[in-house]
Amino acid sequence: MLVSPSTVAERYRSEIRQEIRALQTQLKVVGLLSGDYGPSHTYAEYTRKACEDLGIAYELRDVPRLQLEDAIIEANQDPGVHGIMVYYPIFGNERDNFIKDLVDYRKDIEGLNSFWLRKLYENERTIEGASRSGKAIVPCTALAIIKILEANGAYGSSGTRPAEHKTATIFNRSEVVGRPLAVMMSNDGANVYSFDEFGPLLYRDGQSSETNISRSEALAASDVVITGVPSKNFPKIRAGEISSHATCLNFATIKNFEPDAETKAGIFIPRVGPVTVAMCMRNTLRLYRSYFAS
Amino acid sequence: MLVSPSTVAERYRSEIRQEIRALQTQLKVVGLLSGDYGPSHTYAEYTRKACEDLGIAYELRDVPRLQLEDAIIEANQDPGVHGIMVYYPIFGNERDNFIKDLVDYRKDIEGLNSFWLRKLYENERTIEGASRSGKAIVPCTALAIIKILEANGAYGSSGTRPAEHKTATIFNRSEVVGRPLAVMMSNDGANVYSFDEFGPLLYRDGQSSETNISRSEALAASDVVITGVPSKNFPKIRAGEISSHATCLNFATIKNFEPDAETKAGIFIPRVGPVTVAMCMRNTLRLYRSYFAS
Repeated sequence: MLVSPSTVAERYRSEIRQEIRALQTQLKVVGLLSGDYGPSHTYAEYTRKACEDLGIAYELRDVPRLQLEDAIIEANQDPGVHGIMVYYPIFGNERDNFIKDLVDYRKDIEGLNSFWLRKLYENERTIEGASRSGKAIVPCTALAIIKILEANGAYGSSGTRPAEHKTATIFNRSEVVGRPLAVMMSNDGANVYSFDEFGPLLYRDGQSSETNISRSEALAASDVVITGVPSKNFPKIRAGEISSHATCLNFATIKNFEPDAETKAGIFIPRVGPVTVAMCMRNTLRLYRSYFAS
Repeated sequence: MLVSPSTVAERYRSEIRQEIRALQTQLKVVGLLSGDYGPSHTYAEYTRKACEDLGIAYELRDVPRLQLEDAIIEANQDPGVHGIMVYYPIFGNERDNFIKDLVDYRKDIEGLNSFWLRKLYENERTIEGASRSGKAIVPCTALAIIKILEANGAYGSSGTRPAEHKTATIFNRSEVVGRPLAVMMSNDGANVYSFDEFGPLLYRDGQSSETNISRSEALAASDVVITGVPSKNFPKIRAGEISSHATCLNFATIKNFEPDAETKAGIFIPRVGPVTVAMCMRNTLRLYRSYFAS
């Protein structure tokens, strides 16, 4: 069964819209676009529409890549800006990591700053020292994926371990999606096999350990299969590798499942973008309340 | 003329040794080794010898890669540890960047934390808020390279712009060496052409701009040529590309110059390791004085 994330996104948007309407302040998000990576322009337009729909002001700033760092520092210091969204890739190398950490964590609506990752990896779920207590921010795509799984019954939605007894396999262990997602799902009780080009790790209760499990063993055991491999060299997942009750989700911009696997899956979710953006807007609201509301 | 960095290293070591001897406290550096990358073991042994020679206690901790982050947090919190040195690569991907930023900047004797890079890129040369004022830390390999150039007359050693009228080309724009080095040399007055696999940038006065200069034009104009390309696909620099008065330096673990270029160079420096380690030990002393001395 093919499931679009739009319904899930709309549910969150209507909650956020109401909360925004009740605020005294006009929230503002600044998007920073550099370089000429085509999908970034599309994503920026998409963010603009989502912001406007929710009652958040959005300003897109198109800056030469060598001026991006100064533009981030300016937005960090501007009290009229509540959230900053940077469209990656910029340089396509480790400089992009430097840029992620240059965004003030109090305006990091995508949750990519290592300040938030450190909190997540140490399972600190609240903000300390903020003007009022609040929940910590987590990376928006990882959060969006969990919300989509929840909405589709592939994840419990209550209790402290809603994913107890679930087994998941994730192909991607980036610091922005795959690793935080494995930590979050395993903190929720799941056994998570995490694969990248260097091999697998097993996550349980937020901790990882080495494992020799093969791709086919991990897939055969999984209730949930999540892919995010931006390479055409990745051998796409075939129908024979997954169980017919598995919930499968791909967040890469290219296909990671063969068509027969998409058809065989109990539920197949081909993209997460709309929910990711909704989670960024929810983060904007949370960060505002934690750090800027008087 | 082939020049070994050992003489330069010994000069700094004798200064540091005297300063260490005058301290009331026994300084201690912890080295963290994970994984089985051979050169890391050699480098760790080398650091031990350098520490012992200078009167700094050194403890090497060999930890499984998945426990490295916990080991860093433990060393961060231990008041008996004044400096932390992590031997890279660990995972060989962006997780290594996360690890760099996990080291407390007050114990980051290699100067790799983005806390220090941000200061450097904004040309903030002092530490504020420390128990006493002190100089900011800069990445140890970049600093070592400048000290070697200075000692060999390829760089002025006084005034605020000791590299005025010099032109340099650097092949490497990593966040740990090439980019900080380009910023530092251009802040010292040099014109710096910085190349990586995505093309060249021109650095002047700490700021970069786009340029279309070719490799051969940049090399022909350069008084100083610095390479740090860890790939055998890099076309090695040939004698015909450099001027005979050029000072050439390679800090990669593989050769980046053809033998005839090494011979033609006015001065050729084949490695920087001993001075890098001396700079780490100088940083240990500086960080101790800035943050931990009572």
